[in-house]
Amino acid sequence: MLSFESDYTTGAHEKILQRLCQTNLVTVPGYGADPFCASAKEKIRLACALPEAQVELLVGGTQTNAVVISTMLREYEGVFAAQTGHVNAHEAGAIEYTGHKVLALPQKNGKFTASDLQQALVLFHGDNAREHMVWPGMVYLSYPTEYGTLYSKQELSEIRAVCDEYRLPLFIDGARLGYGLMSRECDLTLPELCRLADVIYIGGTKVGALCGEAVVFTKNNRPEHFENRIKKRGALLAKGRLLGVQFDTLFTDGLYFDISRHAIDMTEQMKDIFRAKGYRFFLDSPTNQQFIILPNERMEALKPHVRFSFWETYDENHTVVRFACSWSTTEADLKALEALL
Amino acid sequence: MLSFESDYTTGAHEKILQRLCQTNLVTVPGYGADPFCASAKEKIRLACALPEAQVELLVGGTQTNAVVISTMLREYEGVFAAQTGHVNAHEAGAIEYTGHKVLALPQKNGKFTASDLQQALVLFHGDNAREHMVWPGMVYLSYPTEYGTLYSKQELSEIRAVCDEYRLPLFIDGARLGYGLMSRECDLTLPELCRLADVIYIGGTKVGALCGEAVVFTKNNRPEHFENRIKKRGALLAKGRLLGVQFDTLFTDGLYFDISRHAIDMTEQMKDIFRAKGYRFFLDSPTNQQFIILPNERMEALKPHVRFSFWETYDENHTVVRFACSWSTTEADLKALEALL
Amino acid sequence: MLSFESDYTTGAHEKILQRLCQTNLVTVPGYGADPFCASAKEKIRLACALPEAQVELLVGGTQTNAVVISTMLREYEGVFAAQTGHVNAHEAGAIEYTGHKVLALPQKNGKFTASDLQQALVLFHGDNAREHMVWPGMVYLSYPTEYGTLYSKQELSEIRAVCDEYRLPLFIDGARLGYGLMSRECDLTLPELCRLADVIYIGGTKVGALCGEAVVFTKNNRPEHFENRIKKRGALLAKGRLLGVQFDTLFTDGLYFDISRHAIDMTEQMKDIFRAKGYRFFLDSPTNQQFIILPNERMEALKPHVRFSFWETYDENHTVVRFACSWSTTEADLKALEALL
Amino acid sequence: MLSFESDYTTGAHEKILQRLCQTNLVTVPGYGADPFCASAKEKIRLACALPEAQVELLVGGTQTNAVVISTMLREYEGVFAAQTGHVNAHEAGAIEYTGHKVLALPQKNGKFTASDLQQALVLFHGDNAREHMVWPGMVYLSYPTEYGTLYSKQELSEIRAVCDEYRLPLFIDGARLGYGLMSRECDLTLPELCRLADVIYIGGTKVGALCGEAVVFTKNNRPEHFENRIKKRGALLAKGRLLGVQFDTLFTDGLYFDISRHAIDMTEQMKDIFRAKGYRFFLDSPTNQQFIILPNERMEALKPHVRFSFWETYDENHTVVRFACSWSTTEADLKALEALL
Repeated sequence: MLSFESDYTTGAHEKILQRLCQTNLVTVPGYGADPFCASAKEKIRLACALPEAQVELLVGGTQTNAVVISTMLREYEGVFAAQTGHVNAHEAGAIEYTGHKVLALPQKNGKFTASDLQQALVLFHGDNAREHMVWPGMVYLSYPTEYGTLYSKQELSEIRAVCDEYRLPLFIDGARLGYGLMSRECDLTLPELCRLADVIYIGGTKVGALCGEAVVFTKNNRPEHFENRIKKRGALLAKGRLLGVQFDTLFTDGLYFDISRHAIDMTEQMKDIFRAKGYRFFLDSPTNQQFIILPNERMEALKPHVRFSFWETYDENHTVVRFACSWSTTEADLKALEALL
Repeated sequence: MLSFESDYTTGAHEKILQRLCQTNLVTVPGYGADPFCASAKEKIRLACALPEAQVELLVGGTQTNAVVISTMLREYEGVFAAQTGHVNAHEAGAIEYTGHKVLALPQKNGKFTASDLQQALVLFHGDNAREHMVWPGMVYLSYPTEYGTLYSKQELSEIRAVCDEYRLPLFIDGARLGYGLMSRECDLTLPELCRLADVIYIGGTKVGALCGEAVVFTKNNRPEHFENRIKKRGALLAKGRLLGVQFDTLFTDGLYFDISRHAIDMTEQMKDIFRAKGYRFFLDSPTNQQFIILPNERMEALKPHVRFSFWETYDENHTVVRFACSWSTTEADLKALEALL
Repeated sequence: MLSFESDYTTGAHEKILQRLCQTNLVTVPGYGADPFCASAKEKIRLACALPEAQVELLVGGTQTNAVVISTMLREYEGVFAAQTGHVNAHEAGAIEYTGHKVLALPQKNGKFTASDLQQALVLFHGDNAREHMVWPGMVYLSYPTEYGTLYSKQELSEIRAVCDEYRLPLFIDGARLGYGLMSRECDLTLPELCRLADVIYIGGTKVGALCGEAVVFTKNNRPEHFENRIKKRGALLAKGRLLGVQFDTLFTDGLYFDISRHAIDMTEQMKDIFRAKGYRFFLDSPTNQQFIILPNERMEALKPHVRFSFWETYDENHTVVRFACSWSTTEADLKALEALL
Repeated sequence: MLSFESDYTTGAHEKILQRLCQTNLVTVPGYGADPFCASAKEKIRLACALPEAQVELLVGGTQTNAVVISTMLREYEGVFAAQTGHVNAHEAGAIEYTGHKVLALPQKNGKFTASDLQQALVLFHGDNAREHMVWPGMVYLSYPTEYGTLYSKQELSEIRAVCDEYRLPLFIDGARLGYGLMSRECDLTLPELCRLADVIYIGGTKVGALCGEAVVFTKNNRPEHFENRIKKRGALLAKGRLLGVQFDTLFTDGLYFDISRHAIDMTEQMKDIFRAKGYRFFLDSPTNQQFIILPNERMEALKPHVRFSFWETYDENHTVVRFACSWSTTEADLKALEALL
């Protein structure tokens, strides 16, 4: 069935599958100590222009957020995030499960500002905070955000400056990083983004892999005993090769960027189609997710023919829905969609 | 030094100390299995007009909130609270430490409305909540609130109705319950309040005791193995008699209510003094805490003479401060304050 | 390099890879709501002869143990396991990370007895246990054990009887289940084993899959809101198809059992080789892991030629090492090993 | 009723009550920032001969163990304790509730040896521990132990040496410290004991206080943000004065030591009585708890007349029971006991 439901409805890029088949019977040590992981990490360091960075491969996005946040925070600290941030709104309390509070910041279109952050920090370090308020230990944001929007270089630099002032690490959730970097609105390169972050993860699951997220500790700041901690959280894969082979392939000859750019091209075409047909956009998103305000009747009429995601109720008669493109979206998919709209 | 800093700056009501002395050498079993605890619980049941209620005695407020919430919630559930609710804002992440998320509701003067709650529940049970959002498992509110305000009978009944619709237990934090019940604005009796709540705690620490909070499970709904769970949380007192004797005294001959009423009387006189002297109130609080907007110079001039609490910055030149009365405030204290203002 | 280091040194059975390739571009919903998962679950129910069983697919073994134990236990309960049980000894504290204590039982060759369990239960329910000891809430054992040994039908039935007496669920960790069931010493079928367990997991990672463990709740006893809880633990895979396709393949035409039987055949040949060459066995293991006592010099001499695992120090001059066969071990591997020994 | 059930069956030493009464209406800041706490801490530092030590006052024993262990361990670490250690056996899983594993050591009469510890450390740092085993982060022992026994200076020094070798902090649980120090078998002073420990707590609850334990961080090693962490654990008392006044009194003019010595004198007389009457001792305990093997009939005959504690089943016809003296035991109590035996 025609599906624009999300960017995780198909399997993996064919090159990944080929490489999994080719390497299948090579015997390697378990738990990530294999040459595929080593090679993948080296290629990611190169792509980030951080030859000394520590790279770790994990399985999924929520897992990665929980691991990074709970291993980097001291036990009495909390993490700032936009109210709509994935860790605050859509991870079923995975951060709190690790004993840490998410400190919600006001947001607009999925983003908070340096000034919002600054104001909150004044409060949390204030006179009557003392032992009664959570001590802030990290700042989290996603690039792109949950609304598909992007922080500009200027906005991120301002947030970075506040982080520096308060000595807070900045964690960038890049579950859809490729689609952000290849967006026509993006004014940052991967190396530039990495330099702004203390830790960032490069999403594989939504960008061509079966699973996998690559965490980059940019400042020689990987928490000590990291493997042990991952194990303790049930997040250590026995056959680490599954992650190694996938990221090694994605970062060979720029595949990760090429397939992300393709997704953006498809999205731009999809936006043109929606625009041409007179559909209303809920907000202006420059990445692979588009939020459309549908009259409820129209929504029901479309449902039997194409899959899309419910986003939120707009008003009594309208609903915001999400149409997403991905690395596997084809021109044929778009033609089919156009015919339906 | 003259102090209106809070309601926990003096020790205990003298009757409590007398009784501690009288009973001191009676040998009794530990861990709350003593006759003082039994008697205290029985008197509390009577005061609540709930002859079948289960009553448990704990040491402090944050401890009580964490114990009640984490034992009543199922492990995948979260608890609603006003953004300014004590569990959300001023307990250093004690609820999250137990693995549960506090789901913040919008507030005004420390209170949320039934409609705020209803709206949030629709969202958390919505189509795209599914496995991604925290499952709501409880509603928390404080009576009085952190701003000293009170929910009216009507407001609480509406909140109760929403709780019933979604089968959510309602937990009332009564750290300052006496001051709420004796407020001239209060339109509820303790039995009425208990019937609106599934669990409520009667604060001792701030109302005449050295320490201690009495939790009342109103509907035969105390979590099973409760003693074991308290022990696991490090909250089981070996000499439970310390809590038993105190609450037994507070609930003998209405002492709890008498000393609360006294505090309210003192507060009303204090309000008159502030009003007469032309001070500005930050909000209209009907209980024992008053929030005054002070010009910063005035604030500094007062500091050497009387203790009060910083509350929040009002603007560049003004600060909101808190003056609190308690069971131990005297007319002489008020005279001294009046002379200073 | 020749490797008998473990059963997770190669990738996946070729049929799994083929099927991943064939199904790759089919669009399906995420988070396990796809037809591959549905089909896999149905086939597993059939193989277990439990048409009503609830089956859930997770990624790895430690994750599965932590998820099953922490979702089935009430928060104040602990889980019994042999001192050498995986959850007690080799999961970096993953169970304690969820807030639950592992209650260690004495063991012999990796197994505890019904009588050990009974005795412990008497103690934990005894007069001075009360609120001071952890309340027992589950019994965990692995089949095969960490030493490759197997509980007999008789032994398991006795343990089951104690579980019934105390109303404790029995959880069987089957990370290497196939190798247990196909062992020549096994006197139980999968359906029989399932009937003895309340919950059991069928290991994929070590038996032909890239990753994946299938949890079978045998008595309509899957914890409520299970998806939500998995998400909270960071264990919900966006592309659940990866697990669905793998288990669907493993449980088509008995593949899981065939490849397990092959591993056992290879192991028996390997045992013959060790025996013929005069090597000493540390214990008598009827499954795919063999524990050999090597003189330290011999061990060092072998290291450059074949990979095996350090197990434990035997004495000053000898070391216990592990040689494991798997679904991918070949006769050629054995010949090469024979030549080395 | 005559009671030798435990050392927490009476209230507090009369001097403590007097001082609580005298200071009752002095207004002081909350949360431990009062002059009574300051004075108590200073006196404890003096008694420990550690002028720079950091002292913190907490409410109860299990709470103190959980707070100290969970704030001093890094999140991936576990704590060694004797199998019979309080934190392992009788705190309802309070340590595991904080996410940390207790690593059980073999014991004899409640004590483990330096050699036991050394052997375990070799295992936990061994080749196949790697990411799979818990990383050891602390050593816990109690003085006296749960069996009333004492480590000798020699034994403790050997354990200390192992701790130094592995850079592990040594935590001494002194819930009954006074009774240990005043034992005729004790070959250590409080300052000597403090120098052997990295952190030690001086028990108040069982030695004359209503509640309270004083934690001494001996090496300028109090975890940062300690107040905030205590608050997060629900262990911060609003009226910290309750703890301050008690410890200030206990450490004025050596009261703590005097009343402990009295308890030991009473115990020695009690031992003489038991001996003279031909009772069998379960083990040789030099402190205030005595373990007697009673024929079951005798035990039942005594029950209506004197309270004592069940300890463990000895054999079919005999039971081990505990008789404890305390600071409040009188010669009259002993006479009454003698008459009964």
